[in-house]
Amino acid sequence: MLTNIDVTLRDGGYRNNFSFPRDYALAHAELSVKAGLEWVEIAYRKGSFKPVPGIGPTGRGDDEYIRAVAEVVGPERVGMILHPKNIDRDDLGQMYEAGARLVRICVNAADMADGLETVRTAKALGFTVAVNFTRVTQQDRRTLVHAAAEAAEYGTDVVYLADSNGSLTPDETRRLVTSVGHVVPCAIGLHPHNNLGLALANSIAAVEAGATWIDSSVLGMGKGPGNLPTEQWLAYLTRRDPGAAYDLGSALGLAELLAGRVAESAPELPLPDLLLGWFDLAVEHRARLGNQDIVDQFAAAAALAQVVSAA
Amino acid sequence: MLTNIDVTLRDGGYRNNFSFPRDYALAHAELSVKAGLEWVEIAYRKGSFKPVPGIGPTGRGDDEYIRAVAEVVGPERVGMILHPKNIDRDDLGQMYEAGARLVRICVNAADMADGLETVRTAKALGFTVAVNFTRVTQQDRRTLVHAAAEAAEYGTDVVYLADSNGSLTPDETRRLVTSVGHVVPCAIGLHPHNNLGLALANSIAAVEAGATWIDSSVLGMGKGPGNLPTEQWLAYLTRRDPGAAYDLGSALGLAELLAGRVAESAPELPLPDLLLGWFDLAVEHRARLGNQDIVDQFAAAAALAQVVSAA
Repeated sequence: MLTNIDVTLRDGGYRNNFSFPRDYALAHAELSVKAGLEWVEIAYRKGSFKPVPGIGPTGRGDDEYIRAVAEVVGPERVGMILHPKNIDRDDLGQMYEAGARLVRICVNAADMADGLETVRTAKALGFTVAVNFTRVTQQDRRTLVHAAAEAAEYGTDVVYLADSNGSLTPDETRRLVTSVGHVVPCAIGLHPHNNLGLALANSIAAVEAGATWIDSSVLGMGKGPGNLPTEQWLAYLTRRDPGAAYDLGSALGLAELLAGRVAESAPELPLPDLLLGWFDLAVEHRARLGNQDIVDQFAAAAALAQVVSAA
Repeated sequence: MLTNIDVTLRDGGYRNNFSFPRDYALAHAELSVKAGLEWVEIAYRKGSFKPVPGIGPTGRGDDEYIRAVAEVVGPERVGMILHPKNIDRDDLGQMYEAGARLVRICVNAADMADGLETVRTAKALGFTVAVNFTRVTQQDRRTLVHAAAEAAEYGTDVVYLADSNGSLTPDETRRLVTSVGHVVPCAIGLHPHNNLGLALANSIAAVEAGATWIDSSVLGMGKGPGNLPTEQWLAYLTRRDPGAAYDLGSALGLAELLAGRVAESAPELPLPDLLLGWFDLAVEHRARLGNQDIVDQFAAAAALAQVVSAA
């Protein structure tokens, strides 16, 4: 059985400064649940990794917003994500009280002490807990596998592999899921990005290798060139298994609603983002490629990749 | 070793009535070869399956156009495609004389007498010959496998499986390539469409199953929601094998040139096309879905699929 998280309101927020109107967010969550997605990740708690000026509601994740969504879809569908450095000791309890039941904790495999403490607290409160390892393609593999095992020992329900740079191929995804699955007893998830157009292929490969949690966003709306498009994912799952309990019609209706309400949701796969994925560079590097011809951007990316890998 | 065909000028023609300007077509072919693609399919000979009013040069494939491209990239890169019913006995000889060296013959597996005769003539003239089985998802499998074997007996170099409706999944692709490969000694190719966002995943699956010829088009520009994007395909191949003899920079430069010169090349993955792929309906059915809400189009597609499958 798969568990799917709709990350549109959160990851898509990178496209519109996290400012989805309240009535849209509520309608979105309702249709997402109707489409059969198990969780709706509705916001960051207190910001992204880096501070974002004037960040909107799905970048703040206030209690009042959590409560409003939970009233519509029920707490058992409401997920939140956070960076441990952004929260204080009372946040998790307040989030739970407001109606969130899934919390995802972003960590870097090389430095996860705060993350593990947060796992422990969240588990004690009753959350379903995922640890999201970001930028997995840039992690030392041994460190990553070791960190995943440690997260599981702390009671994590899901170890999430986040392909933040959109650089994974299906083969690498398969190997990564297999090797992490070899050492952790808990579930494994994939958070794909679509720089190379491989988000769907990687998700299929991840599931074949044993992953059971997959992130997607409606119209693929997410950071950089975006995530796995929810409507493609549900179309695949229902083609593969006509008995699968997803409602593709509702997912398409949601995609149409999003396209009509939020201009920044227009799907795109720009060439510079493909370059970033190919060179395993973070989205933060995009400005460094400049506005020159793509062939010159290619050269700039190649030079940048050498500097990054030497660092 | 893979052989790749760039089908932009031909399949992309469905987006702009086959009217690529001559200077663009020549520049395109040159960059395509520079990117490392083995063949450039430059046109239909004498039209598509159905007559298209005012069809442009890449829908007609005149000798003079073939000659102009062959002068730039050499005959060994110049491919053409045709429907046997559209040509007369002199066409193949004239095409060869003008400078085409690959010819692809579109056939329906259930009725291929004309196609086989055309294969024989083309082989005798010295062409590399592919038989393209169209709409493979709607073919009876036994008929298709039998027809593929027969095409091979007539000397076909490549049996091409065309996912005209964009309905294949990776599993189905793998099974199809495997079962056809079991009975034909010649090469197998895949012509993917991207309705379900699976063109890349299907191409990877096809190659894993033994296919060695893959079609792609720059920016995915092709009929309906388009083909496998060439730049994604070469990015994948060069990530998989850093020694692969493709020049991703040239492919990206070509994509940028196309985007700048041909407005109809803008990538898109519209929801109604996803519906068509999901229900295995042909692009010709798109108008039948109407302009209503996508949820109502879903219902219309479901009803239409029942009629089509009962026919």
